[in-house]
Amino acid sequence: MGHETFMAEALKEARKAFEEGEIPVGAVVVCENRIIGKGYNQTQKLHDVTAHAEMIAITAAANYLGAKYLNDCTMYVTLEPCIMCAGAIGWAQLGGLIIGSLDEKKGFLRVKEPVLHPKTEILTGILSIESKEMLLEFFQNLRQ
Amino acid sequence: MGHETFMAEALKEARKAFEEGEIPVGAVVVCENRIIGKGYNQTQKLHDVTAHAEMIAITAAANYLGAKYLNDCTMYVTLEPCIMCAGAIGWAQLGGLIIGSLDEKKGFLRVKEPVLHPKTEILTGILSIESKEMLLEFFQNLRQ
Repeated sequence: MGHETFMAEALKEARKAFEEGEIPVGAVVVCENRIIGKGYNQTQKLHDVTAHAEMIAITAAANYLGAKYLNDCTMYVTLEPCIMCAGAIGWAQLGGLIIGSLDEKKGFLRVKEPVLHPKTEILTGILSIESKEMLLEFFQNLRQ
Repeated sequence: MGHETFMAEALKEARKAFEEGEIPVGAVVVCENRIIGKGYNQTQKLHDVTAHAEMIAITAAANYLGAKYLNDCTMYVTLEPCIMCAGAIGWAQLGGLIIGSLDEKKGFLRVKEPVLHPKTEILTGILSIESKEMLLEFFQNLRQ
């Protein structure tokens, strides 16, 4: 399966967040072409700043594998991870990080010091329009 | 109570990690002179890179308050937080961050871009010798 197929699954996770009134971000962790962990933003519901989609997906994937390193896995996330999540992705040594839309304000790519593992491959812009549109719709609804 | 009193409690958390074979780092979150959240490193036991002392303490404190922002709270942590934890401390908008020993390799202070909330006050070096000694003892045991 291609990148768009898995990103579409991450977008489904983001949609769950949207429907629960959370900033719509979703993530899935893929290993050997199978989704072994997924998550969506639940910071409001759980009153917990650490409950980002990526954190939940990493914990789920590690739980599935019974191992904390995810070298052979790839994460698909609808929005560029923040520094916290990038730090977690770094610790988990994910093999790949596929990003939907970019987050110029809060994203980790602005940080000059290395945050990810040096071997993590990064790809951006997969289904970015779909991700951006969902975020835009969310924030437009908030303002009304 | 003073900074050393609360850092001593964080060191007790670190000792729990030490006794469970985890890198000994502990943290407590204090609000109105009371500990409302604590945590110690459990990454090995939980197979989860996100299970750092600070993350667990933030989740516990937010759970206690039923609120995700911890502006009126101070975190005491025995070792300088990594980028992931600093990101979480930033999201939680902690009022204060009191650090034991510094971590030149993995600590967040080397990052030039702002990671914490601009109002978070930072203090380092509280019971740093005790923290360093516990870490040293841990890594010496590992090598034997």
